[in-house]
Amino acid sequence: MSKRKIRMGMVGGGRGAFIGGVHRMAAALDGQVELVCGAFSSNPERSRLSGEDFYLPTERVYGSYAEMIEKEKQLPLGERMDFVSIVTPNHVHYGPAKMALQNGFHVVCDKPLCFNMEEAEELVALVEETGLIFALTHNYTGYPMVKQARAMIEAGELGDIRKVVVEYPQGWLSTKLEDTEQKQADWRTDPSRSGIAGAMGDIGTHAENLAEYITGLEITELCADLTAFVPGRQLDDDGNVLLRFNNGAKGILHASQISAGEENDLNIRVYGTKGGFHWRQMEPNTLLVKWLDKPVEVRRTGVGDLYPTATAHTRIPAGHPEGYLEAFANIYRNFAHCVQARLAGETPDPLLMDFPGVKDGLRGMKFIEKVVASSNSKEKWTKF
Amino acid sequence: MSKRKIRMGMVGGGRGAFIGGVHRMAAALDGQVELVCGAFSSNPERSRLSGEDFYLPTERVYGSYAEMIEKEKQLPLGERMDFVSIVTPNHVHYGPAKMALQNGFHVVCDKPLCFNMEEAEELVALVEETGLIFALTHNYTGYPMVKQARAMIEAGELGDIRKVVVEYPQGWLSTKLEDTEQKQADWRTDPSRSGIAGAMGDIGTHAENLAEYITGLEITELCADLTAFVPGRQLDDDGNVLLRFNNGAKGILHASQISAGEENDLNIRVYGTKGGFHWRQMEPNTLLVKWLDKPVEVRRTGVGDLYPTATAHTRIPAGHPEGYLEAFANIYRNFAHCVQARLAGETPDPLLMDFPGVKDGLRGMKFIEKVVASSNSKEKWTKF
Amino acid sequence: MSKRKIRMGMVGGGRGAFIGGVHRMAAALDGQVELVCGAFSSNPERSRLSGEDFYLPTERVYGSYAEMIEKEKQLPLGERMDFVSIVTPNHVHYGPAKMALQNGFHVVCDKPLCFNMEEAEELVALVEETGLIFALTHNYTGYPMVKQARAMIEAGELGDIRKVVVEYPQGWLSTKLEDTEQKQADWRTDPSRSGIAGAMGDIGTHAENLAEYITGLEITELCADLTAFVPGRQLDDDGNVLLRFNNGAKGILHASQISAGEENDLNIRVYGTKGGFHWRQMEPNTLLVKWLDKPVEVRRTGVGDLYPTATAHTRIPAGHPEGYLEAFANIYRNFAHCVQARLAGETPDPLLMDFPGVKDGLRGMKFIEKVVASSNSKEKWTKF
Amino acid sequence: MSKRKIRMGMVGGGRGAFIGGVHRMAAALDGQVELVCGAFSSNPERSRLSGEDFYLPTERVYGSYAEMIEKEKQLPLGERMDFVSIVTPNHVHYGPAKMALQNGFHVVCDKPLCFNMEEAEELVALVEETGLIFALTHNYTGYPMVKQARAMIEAGELGDIRKVVVEYPQGWLSTKLEDTEQKQADWRTDPSRSGIAGAMGDIGTHAENLAEYITGLEITELCADLTAFVPGRQLDDDGNVLLRFNNGAKGILHASQISAGEENDLNIRVYGTKGGFHWRQMEPNTLLVKWLDKPVEVRRTGVGDLYPTATAHTRIPAGHPEGYLEAFANIYRNFAHCVQARLAGETPDPLLMDFPGVKDGLRGMKFIEKVVASSNSKEKWTKF
Repeated sequence: MSKRKIRMGMVGGGRGAFIGGVHRMAAALDGQVELVCGAFSSNPERSRLSGEDFYLPTERVYGSYAEMIEKEKQLPLGERMDFVSIVTPNHVHYGPAKMALQNGFHVVCDKPLCFNMEEAEELVALVEETGLIFALTHNYTGYPMVKQARAMIEAGELGDIRKVVVEYPQGWLSTKLEDTEQKQADWRTDPSRSGIAGAMGDIGTHAENLAEYITGLEITELCADLTAFVPGRQLDDDGNVLLRFNNGAKGILHASQISAGEENDLNIRVYGTKGGFHWRQMEPNTLLVKWLDKPVEVRRTGVGDLYPTATAHTRIPAGHPEGYLEAFANIYRNFAHCVQARLAGETPDPLLMDFPGVKDGLRGMKFIEKVVASSNSKEKWTKF
Repeated sequence: MSKRKIRMGMVGGGRGAFIGGVHRMAAALDGQVELVCGAFSSNPERSRLSGEDFYLPTERVYGSYAEMIEKEKQLPLGERMDFVSIVTPNHVHYGPAKMALQNGFHVVCDKPLCFNMEEAEELVALVEETGLIFALTHNYTGYPMVKQARAMIEAGELGDIRKVVVEYPQGWLSTKLEDTEQKQADWRTDPSRSGIAGAMGDIGTHAENLAEYITGLEITELCADLTAFVPGRQLDDDGNVLLRFNNGAKGILHASQISAGEENDLNIRVYGTKGGFHWRQMEPNTLLVKWLDKPVEVRRTGVGDLYPTATAHTRIPAGHPEGYLEAFANIYRNFAHCVQARLAGETPDPLLMDFPGVKDGLRGMKFIEKVVASSNSKEKWTKF
Repeated sequence: MSKRKIRMGMVGGGRGAFIGGVHRMAAALDGQVELVCGAFSSNPERSRLSGEDFYLPTERVYGSYAEMIEKEKQLPLGERMDFVSIVTPNHVHYGPAKMALQNGFHVVCDKPLCFNMEEAEELVALVEETGLIFALTHNYTGYPMVKQARAMIEAGELGDIRKVVVEYPQGWLSTKLEDTEQKQADWRTDPSRSGIAGAMGDIGTHAENLAEYITGLEITELCADLTAFVPGRQLDDDGNVLLRFNNGAKGILHASQISAGEENDLNIRVYGTKGGFHWRQMEPNTLLVKWLDKPVEVRRTGVGDLYPTATAHTRIPAGHPEGYLEAFANIYRNFAHCVQARLAGETPDPLLMDFPGVKDGLRGMKFIEKVVASSNSKEKWTKF
Repeated sequence: MSKRKIRMGMVGGGRGAFIGGVHRMAAALDGQVELVCGAFSSNPERSRLSGEDFYLPTERVYGSYAEMIEKEKQLPLGERMDFVSIVTPNHVHYGPAKMALQNGFHVVCDKPLCFNMEEAEELVALVEETGLIFALTHNYTGYPMVKQARAMIEAGELGDIRKVVVEYPQGWLSTKLEDTEQKQADWRTDPSRSGIAGAMGDIGTHAENLAEYITGLEITELCADLTAFVPGRQLDDDGNVLLRFNNGAKGILHASQISAGEENDLNIRVYGTKGGFHWRQMEPNTLLVKWLDKPVEVRRTGVGDLYPTATAHTRIPAGHPEGYLEAFANIYRNFAHCVQARLAGETPDPLLMDFPGVKDGLRGMKFIEKVVASSNSKEKWTKF
């Protein structure tokens, strides 16, 4: 069977949304995914208008994810959607993910995975049972220089890892933005839609995922101090965490949405016995590699000897900056490749079998749970 | 008539090519353009294989651009391609562009426009006659912060412009790469395919275009010193140029492909009576704005008060880096918008009627001609 | 009485020492201090040779600090030293400081103040009793942009402070350097000369001092995790600390000497309700000031409207970088100014009455004590 | 004979001057030079007050350089000044330099050397005749990373040099500052005190000196376009120059004092067949070294294997930034070392026999002459 584009049905992401557009661009970039249907909003009229924006036929713009999954399932295999992309607020991840899996559709889901540990464990079990392909868009691990960093550590270039500092400062919630019309602020600060954590759930989980992905280590204990600085805010907008890892390494994780003037400055420094590195999401094509007594090396996308995984996640030559959407697209490209291989009965390229999945989602939910518990505890260390 | 995706037929860009892939990704990103056919290679088998890569039906993968234009023209209007995208080496721009225009197709063409002034003038005349829409992918003007910089100057924020320094250093041709299998180096250093200039044609024209676009000024005189440093190379791989502008401003333009270790460091500094700025392509979301006696401001995509044109060319929030492909996509998005408006009989959004066209291409060809003439002359100043 | 240069007697800082040379250069830079005598080494021959290096008369090069203080005291007032500069390892701060104060000499002392809290409290009491002038060389607060940052916060420009992140990563002790001949590593890792803390005493105290100086806040609680990563090392070479401040602000302090590849990257970020800033010691003439929804400002030494204190601690125009020695010299210059004023019976310029003193030293000793206690405790928070 | 501090008499540099203070701090820093006398101003009262500022005895503060040279010459050898430091505006360099040399005093002179080629040649001849030591404070070559860069090229690490880009943008003369009380602007824009060039003389000569020093090449031809942008200004405040070097390398030099918002951004890029580098005065402890297909290396003062000359011009460990004054002091330190060696009848350390001299001054004067001539010429190339 010859390959074809993979067909995507989207849940959420209608007019006014942010992350839905990101998913659509990321899916489109490499020409491997086609948007064929969607339930873009809980408001049917908004869903319909959104469908027009994307040039979809009216009959494939649905009023709800349930309707979409049911109706699509009835279409012939060569026509119906291959997977569901879930881009709703946190409290509407679990429902469509579960239903999609139960009906044989692969899933791409925005992070965090869901609302609590119970849901998370159920989804993990479902993915195992069904054998379907599940991608969670911890997109920051899609950058080529993150792949390079991970490969360097895996190959032992930095020696034994001793210290990890991962930071995710933003400033956009420095004021009570949720009291304005701002849709993104609104649900993120609302426990009924966001869950038990604010900044820690929204961006702290990215930091946790990045730290574990890049080092190959696991956090075993943590000590957290979360704060809701903006008066009247119900969820944390800042958190500082001490970390301990399974190999004895120590670390710091802090995430904040009240770091006034910061944009989206996710960054990580890792130090081992032989060397260290610094990677910053806002200048993602650069990886500063530091050595005990040699000059710092500026490793750059597309320059010199990089690990195959870095090269496999780069599209254009050195000095032509790739950004957030390209990293995000790497998840879709890899996911699409695996779905295509599945359809074709082939083995996927191992370099492309690399995207965050449901277990990363479970770990993220656990991180949220533990970090909130630790912050409320007088005990110094909370097991992870 | 409701809007629909615009249909693209591609000339060139088959397996092994570089810029074709860039055009495809740029066209796909915003979901406004659909690749429907192509003549991807002068080698029919390679063209066919490339068509498969893009999941095109066999019958719309053609053996030559002439065949493509003829056959597509015979398809019904709701099905045939709307425009031709030309991504071949320089010597194969003129032919398909002319034939496309003569047959009623809009055109997107890679730069430089063509091979010499005669061809350029003919294309300008054809575009005027036919009234068709023509975009030239001087992609670097697609960046939001370039738009911002242009708007700042237009609004007089920098005062009268006095000095312009535009640089385009690369290092990838520091050795005789054309003697290896490297396809990009091969045709770029060959006068029969590249034209009378090497680095000056390939990247010097980008620098010239950026300087004139961003300042709104015109170069009136120049003094050039071009060199082919690599032994045996026929075309310039480095050039230094003094500039004079129509308002009395002075400037420097240098472009190089033997600046060892440089990636793709196009950058421009402009200084006026009130302030100046620095923009670098490799960190494109930052515009450093400098004032006479105030702190430097770090203007960033998505942060604070920007001109509407900057915002109109930005997709995602501050701190989520957009890169080369997004800037390139801005040309396709704007071009597609104008074609859609044409089809719908509407007036395009003025903010989106902003992409380089055939006259920029003519100016680029003239720059090539003048800079080569100046380099060969003992006269200090060559009129532009 | 007309002003004159102030006369310095030095304890420590002979051949092979590091910080002694720094003190001498810092003292000399502004032409206000003259080195007139010294006890440069516990080894009399090395002391003598060092005296020759500094062109001192043989009779004023002493075999011990005790001898120096006794002999100098017998010289006439217009000739004898005015103050003692103590540049020995930590365990030899208390002795000479105490004796100098008891004999009427002003003191400049390297940090940390001494060996333990008892000594520290005794020195504080002695300074109060004698009324003598005491400077502690927490030199990093001598930088003009640190002064500017402090003044901005004091003036309320950043609003209420919410978060402080202060870091001091170094990598030079990543290996067991103390087993080689390296003199600096040797005593710093030895509890009998360094005290109960390693990295935390040597550089953590700088971080603590900088954070409190720049914000005007006090740490009230901390939670620390110190580690000796290098096998066989007795004192911490890395520490991560959560902070709470007296106004409700939260923070992070980490200091490390095993962050492989880091030079001396002391830096601080402070965020308030209105804005934030970032200052880095390794690029000290730049202060990045961040605002809620305005471009980042690059405040620079010598550029635009700065607070008088920033200007008063700058020697040369914008773009002529001042560095570590100039910041260090600001302490000596201010100290010398105050001693001169004392001698002349004048009131010092308030802008220059700004250097760390014995109470900063006491606070540093307390920080060492608390951070070690916290690290050994299972309690989450240790009162400071 | 045992070594002693070298005694300096200063011409110029009284209250209100800029560069005089720099010379005094640079001379004092390393404890090798002692200011013993001066003629600090053409105004005797200002000279006297300045002498008080420096704690000099009244009898050694003179009303003119001529008086100083005459009187000092009559003092016994162990007491009188060893050298004259000339820190006056350009038109008062030649007089005191000549007289100092004729009376047996070594000389440190600020740049440019003098007023015209005749004076310059006379001084060169005088230095040769007398054998006295003459240092010209082209201070930017005093930075350790400039030494490193020069040593790298000398050792062939970059291969054959092909391209040099040296820039010296400042913005402080963007307005007619000379019409205010600003003393620095006043004489620099006045042909009767500054000479035939403005920006080109003041800072262009630094750029020329740096380019030749660092590459070891000589400029053989140039093509200049100088402009006085500020209305009513008599001397150039901006200049753009194409360069050709004696080995076939090409280059660009531009210097400007109307580049609004620039501080003092002298920087140089050099590219050879094997690699290139970039050095910036405003971040002087960093040298970015670029290679054909390897990561950029961040060479830093004090880190890793540096050439002995870099190490010999560094005072403090990595990460403790040294700046402008330290580089300036390197000239004084080296000069003092050579004078001490002369006095002691010893051979100086070859690493320290490295400071700009009278011949660099002659070359700078020639550069001024040629660049002005070229700018006035219709010929493309002017021989240098």
